Amino acid sequence: MTLHEKRAALKPRLQALLDGKTKPLGSLGQIEALALQLGLILGTERPRLEAPQMVVFAADHGLAAQGVSAYPSDVTWQMVENFLAGGAAVSVLARQHGLALSVVDAGVARDIAPRAGLIQRKIAWGTADASLGPAMTSAQCEAALQAGAEVVRGLPGNALLLGEMGIGNTSSASLLMTRLTGTPLAQCVGRGTGLDDAGVLRKTRVLEAVLQRHAEVHGPLDVLATMGGFEIAMMCGAVMEAARTGRVVVVDGFITTSAVLVAQRLQPGVLDACVFAHQSGEPGHALLLQHLGAQGLLNLGLRLGEGSGAALAWPLLVSACRILEEMASFESAEVSTQMP
Amino acid sequence: MTLHEKRAALKPRLQALLDGKTKPLGSLGQIEALALQLGLILGTERPRLEAPQMVVFAADHGLAAQGVSAYPSDVTWQMVENFLAGGAAVSVLARQHGLALSVVDAGVARDIAPRAGLIQRKIAWGTADASLGPAMTSAQCEAALQAGAEVVRGLPGNALLLGEMGIGNTSSASLLMTRLTGTPLAQCVGRGTGLDDAGVLRKTRVLEAVLQRHAEVHGPLDVLATMGGFEIAMMCGAVMEAARTGRVVVVDGFITTSAVLVAQRLQPGVLDACVFAHQSGEPGHALLLQHLGAQGLLNLGLRLGEGSGAALAWPLLVSACRILEEMASFESAEVSTQMP
Repeated sequence: MTLHEKRAALKPRLQALLDGKTKPLGSLGQIEALALQLGLILGTERPRLEAPQMVVFAADHGLAAQGVSAYPSDVTWQMVENFLAGGAAVSVLARQHGLALSVVDAGVARDIAPRAGLIQRKIAWGTADASLGPAMTSAQCEAALQAGAEVVRGLPGNALLLGEMGIGNTSSASLLMTRLTGTPLAQCVGRGTGLDDAGVLRKTRVLEAVLQRHAEVHGPLDVLATMGGFEIAMMCGAVMEAARTGRVVVVDGFITTSAVLVAQRLQPGVLDACVFAHQSGEPGHALLLQHLGAQGLLNLGLRLGEGSGAALAWPLLVSACRILEEMASFESAEVSTQMP
Repeated sequence: MTLHEKRAALKPRLQALLDGKTKPLGSLGQIEALALQLGLILGTERPRLEAPQMVVFAADHGLAAQGVSAYPSDVTWQMVENFLAGGAAVSVLARQHGLALSVVDAGVARDIAPRAGLIQRKIAWGTADASLGPAMTSAQCEAALQAGAEVVRGLPGNALLLGEMGIGNTSSASLLMTRLTGTPLAQCVGRGTGLDDAGVLRKTRVLEAVLQRHAEVHGPLDVLATMGGFEIAMMCGAVMEAARTGRVVVVDGFITTSAVLVAQRLQPGVLDACVFAHQSGEPGHALLLQHLGAQGLLNLGLRLGEGSGAALAWPLLVSACRILEEMASFESAEVSTQMP
């Protein structure tokens, strides 16, 4: 049997298991859909999540020099230090849920001292400024994709939670979204870390100029190289590898989803492996999820990134597995299913 | 200082703490509002949730004889057995999150054998049929409110998660909602455990008749006695006691929220103590939350009850406390807060 045939055979068995649990049909809503998806990804009626890995990809963006963010580029390395020291939101949440936390230096514009939890895969000290030329060379983009895949191959477990850090990276995500989905730029741009109205206007004008400069670039790989970031390219490679090896991928917010968008163009089918943790407060995210036919589990107005939304949603995945494994059936619990 | 003054003084300190954490201002969305609320309820800048108690109140409804539910009344005691045996959704989820689970027999129409985890507070073997007369006497209603308060006083910890079980109890919730809020009945009625269109029509006709029969009943206590259920009255008493003693109350779905509605009329201020876990798939719930000025944390199309939604949302409360306690500040982590 091919994997596709195996899944097709498994689906009705999983559905029957869920329908037989002691609850009105479908009454656990999205948790049931999630249980079904996790069973299909892991290829079993008893999916168990093992050694979940939260991986935060960090890199700097040359475009940040154009004033597209409310924070300076230095915040990227400062936050990497904060992740590693255990003081960031994702550090706290990963600890709460027993998620192993790794930080990948995909291209931070400063040397980060080696230590436990840091994976060194620096492509360069930040991308080039996309308003002046391509953000990366084709070779750099290819190297980032490969590095992402290699990072995943080096990690244990069957679940990957994606996070990112990179001052300026909502700009890259907006550019990838508008160019690859055709959504007008204005609907893809938001406040990022907290721009005011004037800041959003400035950001939009900068991004318009980038799009004009690279008007002829359309293929997913070329768009990624020209307007993406090292952390986004690495996440894209990580998603493809994780999907190919049957892992569950927990997607965080707007930027992570933009990496999935590219991955899905390069390797159709990756979406089957993706659980979308939340719909963020960044306005483009709702539209991007819609474009992918996806629905976030949470909708809490989060707009922090780092993988914080993925971590917050994680217990729902555990619940879905436990419902399948531990809940009694109408038969086993001798509960009536219909009017006498 | 009064409690009110103490809270007023605490609020800006909590807000300043949240604003100083290493994240863009407000970027943890509803989690930040939750952290603020938990700090205010527990009266501290470092709220910690201790010995959380999931309490499922179960009772039967005389009105079920009129065919308002897709399931027979026997399912109430069968599910109580299932809760106690550990096989129900709420049992599984309580285990996952380390929530102590108690089941209160508030008025199940069958004797439940005593055992660990069961709290025996049976008012009667089910309410009377509200289409023929009042569901309970004033004395029964008062006894149920008292019992709810006593159950809470007998439990350790500073957090109460509410769940319920009772075939026919979406009908009671709809009746309480329409009479106490003035929302037209049609907007308060849903499929409950899974009625088809004809079933919803029948249920609506039955509820119209109940409303007509008790057209003169308007005060919250009288409405509760006439059209409520023992589990709803007991939850109402539990909510008032928990709020009075400074506990966090985690409200589950439509039926639990209807108990909060009554509690809020009897003891204004209880809402401050209530965290609304989710917005359920039962259509009246969204309107009822709106009426209370409340927002659910989750929106997963859940419509199971039992406290399952409260249990699923629980880790978000823990996260909110940990964010306050464990996250670094811009100052402590030496992260830049503005453009150089």
